[in-house]
Formats: sequence, structure tokens, C-alpha cells
Amino acid sequence: MRDVVIAGVGMHRFGKHLDRSLKQMGSDAAWAAIDDAGVEPRRIGCAYVGNSLGGLLTGQEGVRGQVILSEAGLDEIPVVNVENACASATTALRGAWLEVAAGTCDVALALGVEKMFVGDTARSLAALAADSEIDLARQGMQFSAVYAAHPKYNLRGRMEQYGWSARDFADVVVKNSRNGSLNPNAQHRRALSAEQVLGSPMISDPLTLFMCSSIGDGAAAAIVCAAELAQQLTDSIPVSVAAIKLRSGRTFTTGDEGFSTLREMVGELYDETGVGPEDIDVAEVHDAMAPIELLVYEQLGLCEPGEGPRLLREGVTALGGAHPVNPSGGLTSRGHPVGATGLAQVAELVWQLRGHAGARQAKERPLVALAHNQGGALAGMDSAAYALTLLMR
Amino acid sequence: MRDVVIAGVGMHRFGKHLDRSLKQMGSDAAWAAIDDAGVEPRRIGCAYVGNSLGGLLTGQEGVRGQVILSEAGLDEIPVVNVENACASATTALRGAWLEVAAGTCDVALALGVEKMFVGDTARSLAALAADSEIDLARQGMQFSAVYAAHPKYNLRGRMEQYGWSARDFADVVVKNSRNGSLNPNAQHRRALSAEQVLGSPMISDPLTLFMCSSIGDGAAAAIVCAAELAQQLTDSIPVSVAAIKLRSGRTFTTGDEGFSTLREMVGELYDETGVGPEDIDVAEVHDAMAPIELLVYEQLGLCEPGEGPRLLREGVTALGGAHPVNPSGGLTSRGHPVGATGLAQVAELVWQLRGHAGARQAKERPLVALAHNQGGALAGMDSAAYALTLLMR
Repeated sequence: MRDVVIAGVGMHRFGKHLDRSLKQMGSDAAWAAIDDAGVEPRRIGCAYVGNSLGGLLTGQEGVRGQVILSEAGLDEIPVVNVENACASATTALRGAWLEVAAGTCDVALALGVEKMFVGDTARSLAALAADSEIDLARQGMQFSAVYAAHPKYNLRGRMEQYGWSARDFADVVVKNSRNGSLNPNAQHRRALSAEQVLGSPMISDPLTLFMCSSIGDGAAAAIVCAAELAQQLTDSIPVSVAAIKLRSGRTFTTGDEGFSTLREMVGELYDETGVGPEDIDVAEVHDAMAPIELLVYEQLGLCEPGEGPRLLREGVTALGGAHPVNPSGGLTSRGHPVGATGLAQVAELVWQLRGHAGARQAKERPLVALAHNQGGALAGMDSAAYALTLLMR
Repeated sequence: MRDVVIAGVGMHRFGKHLDRSLKQMGSDAAWAAIDDAGVEPRRIGCAYVGNSLGGLLTGQEGVRGQVILSEAGLDEIPVVNVENACASATTALRGAWLEVAAGTCDVALALGVEKMFVGDTARSLAALAADSEIDLARQGMQFSAVYAAHPKYNLRGRMEQYGWSARDFADVVVKNSRNGSLNPNAQHRRALSAEQVLGSPMISDPLTLFMCSSIGDGAAAAIVCAAELAQQLTDSIPVSVAAIKLRSGRTFTTGDEGFSTLREMVGELYDETGVGPEDIDVAEVHDAMAPIELLVYEQLGLCEPGEGPRLLREGVTALGGAHPVNPSGGLTSRGHPVGATGLAQVAELVWQLRGHAGARQAKERPLVALAHNQGGALAGMDSAAYALTLLMR
């Protein structure tokens, strides 16, 4: 297979955009990526479009990508609409990568887009419930409560085992909200104190409101290109796609097995690329709820089990630290429009690797960047989709 | 890229199955394909699952494939949920083919499944409307009326230009319903006379009820495998995938341009594979409404424009003819559960190429088979997705 680069990225700012449709946000992000890559649109040989909730929330059940791309003026190419809950956008990126790597085309578009604010919050929440991130939600629990109660996360057990406190979870939000305050594409741009996080309404003990990602609208896109043709076809600073991995979790019986699929994927990623946790210059991880970030530190090998709060206290994962995590603000601050999130992570990492992240530049010259994205929690099954993307300058 | 074969196929009979869920039908079809291939399930390295209407009709908006495959006992593999309206299943097959051809895995599962009967026909029809096969349906027209009125098909114009009559359209159904009567997987198994077709209720002039595909439930699946490993990993009669093409139509201004994308795709398919229309031993085409079959004869090069009715009269496209079309009964008789159709076409062609089609075997020793599948008609745009699959024994 051919080497592949990301030649351009683009976003439609995440937020509450009652006046913006899937079409408009998706088309804007696609064109932002095309312009960023400096590629001629007619060179785009195929498109993968990730979206999760558009059927139930907008009524557009079928051919969502074609509806969006026809608005963007892109037709007569293979368009594949993909869905993998909160990992939909990374699934789209993987599809575009595979097409270019396999040689079916030289340039491909990956787009992730979601519209969750439809002027009827009950409907938005019902769609999330039906999103099956959530057999539990059908029992009348809120989305966030799934995380608090899910045996995979076992938050109460971990708090007891490691001496973690709600304050540790709040510290994740303090870091990420500061990063988000520096990100013009972020949904929430207020830097929060630990007191503000802990004092926000309790959603599902131990999770308070500001520890939880909110619903949101937005889009993100990437142009991928065959590495050997990037100089000829694009006008940008290419970033290499070292690996993209996608996998469904295993059916599990105890909480300890909950993250075993992710752990194996990370191990394979490191083995295959020769990269280790010490090489990760910057990462975006799926902090749908703040404590997940601490758990992912462990899975990525950035620390031993239970040591996440120490990394936070020592500034290891802050901007300027050894391994900055979620410089964009992460899901809790940059926002989490389900089907757009994975490509927003990748867009951020491309900007970081280029040194174009402005006030939130995580390091002066990062070389290696990792995105962790996951989606969908079925009863008795680990995440329905885990996705890892390793990028290199 | 590596050569790829289809090592096994399976179906859940199409029909009205109020007591069967997406999970059950999908799992049954997947296992039928696995058993047919004689492959060990743990060899399956990834899965592509096509479904179009599950969000609106079953409430299962997210990670549909994982929900189905976890029922089937398949986890810890990449699962990609794809959607392309009536071409969803062929899109799934193309994804599985690409993974194996590119070498990310050696064996992949493609599954298409749809549940349209939910005990509330109004809801089923509303979902189809929202399926955007249909801006027109939003104006209060029935699904079928789109076909009658769409400038791409221009049925009235063609009737005038070529002297076609409603009887010609009925003759398509006479042929296909006879084939369907011989197919144990078909939804409608009554061989119809031209009089019965013409005498059925008028849906949208010139289309009568029996000229239109109906709503239905069902599933179809295929196991694809690297050709070089088929003998080692499977226990079946492999069928080669010579080509799979997927493309969105162009935005058009006049009816004549309507099929231009399909025409170009067919030309490329023939150029790239060295196959010509004279070589097509058997075909399954997308007769969502009977007249489409006549139009597709032309696009495939089986006849000159306007000559479709002659092919029917001369038996060229009947079982035993030079180019049998829709031996399964096609969409009008075998049935058309939207997201399952493309793989039902492919399953039929695999059975035909193996000589295992029983009473509906189209030819004694067919070598070359073609499936034409399409989906989604946006306002001002040709089909949202055209898909062609060329198979060879």
C-alpha cells in the first residue's frame, strides 16, 4: 500500500448553530479542507462522510453525504456514508486513507458532521439514547450516567482503589477548558477553575455538568493524498498518516476486560510503527467525560495505572509539558458533535504538527501525534468502535 | 491490489417478517454466508454492514452493525456501517472487497439488511420519503411517483419516442415474476400475467402496483477472501470479483443527461475488464420500477435505445436466453428491502455462476455475471449512488 499524507484540514466551528444545517456546516468544512490543501476539487477521487444522528435529528436518513457534497459542488465520485457513533469521523478518515493507500484514487475527502441542536432538546437526547450508546439510557438514565455506571469505566471502584477524588476529574477540565479558551473553533471558551467544575450541577455522581461533554453542532474535514503526489497535487505542509486502526470492543464479563481491546490496539500500534509512549509529542483523546482522559493516559502507556492525576499535577499533559493532551480543549471544551469529533481531533493534530496552533501550540516542534476516538457502548460489550490515528511530521 | 473472490453468500428470505428484527435477520444471513464459505469465523478480519432506514424505522440510529454482529457472535474486528440508500449493500461489498484487495485482512464480511415492516405502514413510507430518494415525496407524492415523474427516466417521453406501451412494462414483470416464483428467497412468488399486471391498481400513470417494488424485510451477505488464500481458508466454489464500481451521479439539467454517469461507468467497466455486453451471461438489475429494466438494457449495451421490449419479446433476457436478466425475480418479485438488495443480487449471481440456482438456473454454464444497483434520487441530481459488480467463474 502507498504512503498517505493529510494535505489539508478544515472545521466549521463547534457550537450551537440553530441557523446552520448539516449541508451548510459540512460544505463549509469540506471547502475549508480543500482550500487548506490547495488541491483542485476535480482531483478528489472519492469521499467518505461520517455522521451519526442525522436520520433521527434532521430526518435525512439516506445519502447524507451526497446531499451535503452536492451542496459543496462535488458530484460524480464514489461517496460512502459511514457511521460508528462517536467514532464516525475517524471511520471516514480511515476509509479515505484506505482508498488512497490502495490506489483507487490519489486524493480523497473525509468529512465528519453532526447537527444536535434542533430546537428540541428532548429530541436530541432521545436520538442519543437510540444511538445505542445506550441501552442504559432507555432505562431513563442520562447519557452521562452511562459513563458513571458502566463497568468498563468502574469510576467508583477506581476512586477507591487509587484514592482518586472528584477533584482529580475536575483538574482534567481545568486543563482542557484553559486550552479550549485559546481555540477559536471550540464550543466552550471559558477557562474554568476546579471550584467552578465541582460546583456545577451534579449529573451522575461523581460526574458534574462541566465534566461532561455537551451536545453540539459542527463539522471537520481532511483531504488525504498519496504521499508521492502531495507536492504535485497540493500546496500545503503534508502530515504523514503513520497508522489508522479501527476495531470493535470485545464482549466482556468483568470491568477489567473493558479496555482490553484498546490496550491491545495501542500495543500493536506501537509495535508496528516503532513509536512508543515516550515519543508522543501531542495527543487528542476522547474525554467524553473527564475521567476517561485519566484512563486513557494509562492505556496509551503515558503512566502506570492510577497515576493520571499525578501527570495532571506535574503539568506533563498541559501545554508545554512532555506529553500535552487535548490542546484543542478536548470533547468537554472544544465540543463533541458526535459524528464530527474524530476529524476535529485530527485537524487539531495537523495544526499542532505544522506549528500553526497559535496560542495553544502544545510544543515548539512536535513530530509525533496520536488521536484516540471511541464510540458506542452496547450492553455487555466494550466500545462499539475504538479508533487510533498516528500522525507524523 | 490482490485478486479477491466471493467465497460464500447467504440470505434471509425477503418478505414481511413482523416477528424478525434487524439483529435476527442480519445474523442469520451472516451465518448463512459463513457456513456457505466454510470459513472459520475467527478468520473474518473486518465487516461492512449496509442498512439505510434502521434509524427512523427501528430507532437503532447508531452502530447498527455492531448490534447485529454482536448478536452473531462476531466482535473485536473493524466494523464499518455504511449507507447509500438502495445501493447500501453493494457499498458494503465494495468496502469488504477493498479491505481484502488492499491487504488489511484476508477475509471480510459484507452484510446488507433492512427492516421496513414495523407494523405501521405510514411510518415506513415516511422513512422512505426522508430517505431523500425523494425530495419529491416531500411534496406529498408516493415513492413510485418519483420514478414516473423523474426527468432522468422520462417515461412518458420515451413511450412517445419509441412507441413503448404500458404492456411493455408489464412484460418485464411477467418475466421477473415467473423467475421469482421459482426462487425460495423471493418475497413475491406468484407468476403474473400481463393482464394481471395491467389490471392492478394504478399507482402513478403509467405505473401500476405490480410494476413497483414493494416494501420488505430481509438480509443478504457475502464472505470475500483473498483469491490466493481461498483454497486454504474456505471450503467453497469461489467466484472472482472482476470489478466493483461505485459513483454518485452528476447534477443534470436535462433528462438526456440523467443516465450519463451510469453509461460512463459501464464503458469504463468494459474497457478495464475486457468484457463486453455480448459476454454477459446473466445479470441482476435494479428494477425498482419495471420500466427501469428496459432503460438499463440500453445502458449495459444489450440493445440500442428503445429496443428493450424487443429483447423481452424474443426471450433474450428470459431464463435460457442469450442474456438472462433478473433470474432472482428482481426487485419487483424477489423484493427490495432497501439496504439488503445489492447483496441479494450478488448472492443470486454467485449461485448462478456455480450452477446452483435450481429451477431458475439462467444458463447451463455461465461465466460472466453483472449486477447493477442504484440508490437515492436528489432533486436536480442523477442517482446518489450507482454501483456495478462484475463477477466471473
